[in-house]
Amino acid sequence: MAQKLESKERLREICRVAARVFYEKGYDGASMQDIAKAVGLTKAGLYHHVGSKDRLLYEIMNYGMDILDETVLQKVKDIADPQEKLRQTIVGHIDLIVRARDQEITVILHENRSLRGALRKKINARKREYIHYLEGLIAQVQERSGATPLLSPPLAAFALLGMVNWLYQWYRSEGLTKQDELTPAYVDFFFRGLLSTA
Amino acid sequence: MAQKLESKERLREICRVAARVFYEKGYDGASMQDIAKAVGLTKAGLYHHVGSKDRLLYEIMNYGMDILDETVLQKVKDIADPQEKLRQTIVGHIDLIVRARDQEITVILHENRSLRGALRKKINARKREYIHYLEGLIAQVQERSGATPLLSPPLAAFALLGMVNWLYQWYRSEGLTKQDELTPAYVDFFFRGLLSTA
Repeated sequence: MAQKLESKERLREICRVAARVFYEKGYDGASMQDIAKAVGLTKAGLYHHVGSKDRLLYEIMNYGMDILDETVLQKVKDIADPQEKLRQTIVGHIDLIVRARDQEITVILHENRSLRGALRKKINARKREYIHYLEGLIAQVQERSGATPLLSPPLAAFALLGMVNWLYQWYRSEGLTKQDELTPAYVDFFFRGLLSTA
Repeated sequence: MAQKLESKERLREICRVAARVFYEKGYDGASMQDIAKAVGLTKAGLYHHVGSKDRLLYEIMNYGMDILDETVLQKVKDIADPQEKLRQTIVGHIDLIVRARDQEITVILHENRSLRGALRKKINARKREYIHYLEGLIAQVQERSGATPLLSPPLAAFALLGMVNWLYQWYRSEGLTKQDELTPAYVDFFFRGLLSTA
């Protein structure tokens, strides 16, 4: 058990370093040799840990989805009220995108053309699971509001994901807008649009 | 003049083909030889037209911004009412992202890590100009509504760009949601959030 945990932490460390190298050199531009050197492993040692370059990219994306799960979804899972649960999910998701720590992983997770075949399907299935979770919450929130909503749950979920995930394109923590201003403004904006009626 | 037009059209054709090759192989993975072959030029001929691989990437992004200008902004420039002008801008921008024709150019425009230095600055300046245009319109719309807005014009502009640009990640014209349902739903959603008051 201790060994398994250690090996998981080792894989995550490799993912974080490799994400940085991919971010700097591009997926095609970065060689396994570059990554091994950055991690402090031999090339053979790196292949032993991750199997292949494709698999490494998959592990980075999977790690990105793990972070969402562990730092956002686990924290809200016991909230009973759907509106509060959705609100806290959005707050957590914004926090995840905005903090600089996992920036490279966020970018790689959203620019996933390089991953193909079965591994791409596995990541897309995890992303889809999160989208369905959001759609379900949105539907519950709309039902409870009792009004006829303007936006179907899938369109609302993608509008939300767009607003929030796009943050990585422009938001800089050293900029004028602070996170404690951004987050409530976006949450309120989303709920106003969501709960308006035709 | 005719020659200049012809050379512009030739450059655009190269951009469209090269965007497809970059999309398939990645910027680092695609060689100038690959692109020359796809365009039907010798490698020397391709370099003659575009100067360098960096420059070619820049030309593709610049072409993407030209399309926005020509097919969206030119069409709305004479609309006097700010709310109608903003509405038609959003309609046009959604149409641009959603139609499959320029898909590869859209992707390349938004995943711009590969471009560096002065060329990156030039593209970012064009993107910033569009953002300022949106912010200006949003401020006018909010002023005319007379109410205290929830969202500052920059935050509203980026929320809008997120919702709309994210479409390229998920929207497929062959899917369940048709564009004539999507577009008014997103436009109304945005305006509800924008014009709500605290």
